[in-house]
Amino acid sequence: MPDEFTFLTDLRAITTHPAAAGLADDTAQLEVAAGTLILTSDTMVESVHYRPHDPPGSVGWRLAAVNLSDLAAKGATPLACLLNYSLSGNAAWDRAFLDGLNQALTAYAMPLIGGDTVAMPAGAPRSLTLTAIGTAPTKVPLRSCAQPGDTLWVTGTIGGAAFGADGQPRDLARYLHPVPRVAEGQALAPLATAMMDISDGLLIDAQRLAAASDIAIHIDLDVIPLALPGPVLDAACAGDDYELLFTLPEGVTPPVAATRIGTASPGNGLTLTANGTPVPLPARLGYRHG
Amino acid sequence: MPDEFTFLTDLRAITTHPAAAGLADDTAQLEVAAGTLILTSDTMVESVHYRPHDPPGSVGWRLAAVNLSDLAAKGATPLACLLNYSLSGNAAWDRAFLDGLNQALTAYAMPLIGGDTVAMPAGAPRSLTLTAIGTAPTKVPLRSCAQPGDTLWVTGTIGGAAFGADGQPRDLARYLHPVPRVAEGQALAPLATAMMDISDGLLIDAQRLAAASDIAIHIDLDVIPLALPGPVLDAACAGDDYELLFTLPEGVTPPVAATRIGTASPGNGLTLTANGTPVPLPARLGYRHG
Repeated sequence: MPDEFTFLTDLRAITTHPAAAGLADDTAQLEVAAGTLILTSDTMVESVHYRPHDPPGSVGWRLAAVNLSDLAAKGATPLACLLNYSLSGNAAWDRAFLDGLNQALTAYAMPLIGGDTVAMPAGAPRSLTLTAIGTAPTKVPLRSCAQPGDTLWVTGTIGGAAFGADGQPRDLARYLHPVPRVAEGQALAPLATAMMDISDGLLIDAQRLAAASDIAIHIDLDVIPLALPGPVLDAACAGDDYELLFTLPEGVTPPVAATRIGTASPGNGLTLTANGTPVPLPARLGYRHG
Repeated sequence: MPDEFTFLTDLRAITTHPAAAGLADDTAQLEVAAGTLILTSDTMVESVHYRPHDPPGSVGWRLAAVNLSDLAAKGATPLACLLNYSLSGNAAWDRAFLDGLNQALTAYAMPLIGGDTVAMPAGAPRSLTLTAIGTAPTKVPLRSCAQPGDTLWVTGTIGGAAFGADGQPRDLARYLHPVPRVAEGQALAPLATAMMDISDGLLIDAQRLAAASDIAIHIDLDVIPLALPGPVLDAACAGDDYELLFTLPEGVTPPVAATRIGTASPGNGLTLTANGTPVPLPARLGYRHG
């Protein structure tokens, strides 16, 4: 299968880690110190998690970025990853995908050490999986440990990767090349009582954090940092931001650029205000993909 | 998406490992001792790696078994795994798949600690990935370290999972429920100079071992242990055996049931004899799937 050999040759060209010898040996070896590993795995399916016409380099970058964002939410340091790739039958697409993937793996020092390459039946959508391994910080922030009295914060800005009324991403660069907050996550891990990344939308993810922590969360819509001018609820219910949402004990200031957007209190559920007035929750708080 | 919630509930029911809390938290945590991990990941695609009408419990078992077989080839001890699952739109199929997967994970003490669940576009084939993590033995046998003068051995019998002239597996139970040689791999690792599992066919995998080790391998077709009576070349070129192929220094006897089928010598390539007479290599030595 020439496609596979070409792809594996390209793949090996981006794997400089000694363990990448495993690509020819069905398995990879990884030396680890005693401690806690953080493991995460995300699958992106064509037409579900990305648009068929998205540039393949962006698909490669995003596959790395979504996994790196999961590591970031735990304050983990990227260690290595494995790629499960469905050959597209389009060698140029495969090569551009690998280029984009490699840019992210290089930028975040997460070597590719193994995985699998499969052919798909003709016409089947691509299904791409990356499994990322990181070393945990001393204290791993979970989404379930926010405390009443905590303050709620978010890094960066919200809603840039959202799709506008024209059906296009409002900020195309942000959609195509999300930036995982790895360094920020590492700096926040020792301080945050709870942390998660925002992948499906600020409000739906805040609701998940509240439910996991068994607390109430209140968000002031007026202070949500918007990526672009526009309706705040549209931005707060849009996915693909890959910012970090976290809680800190009252009085603690985050060591990275972040905006205080709310508070945690006894109770449960998510409440919103704008201009000091309660705002009902939208029917749809974010993106629920499979 | 009710399918996903049902599936995740079923999934959590089979995950008793503490780290499985990660299924709700996008990431999993794994405590490890200092040392070497063995990582492997296999993707099985409907209509490529299994037949659409295969029982879903068998598909779940086989997905675990092919990964466990890769760990076995390194003498590794299963530690944990992650599942990337494409919802089938058929809750009964999903549940039966999980039952079969769980049987294998339980039998081989490899807890499921995380992964991802995705929806597929309507009509798309299922794509199922399992990533397995094991702890390496003190000496990890590679496929690249066979030495001239070594003897060549295989566990179990060959050709049972092959498809017969009627288009059906010759030994259906063997095809549906391959048995990964985990204990045998652990026993062999300290002694074997090279080891790999036979997934694509005895001859193609022996050729790969010869190429990786830069040696010549000779196999005596008369002594290959056949699962069922029939032409030896058919069996030796058939896939899905999941037996271990390994080399030992001359004079060393394997500590597990195995058959001596050949020798390694200086040079390169694979040669065959039957009744003491050279046999040309078949045009197709095994199964090359993507």
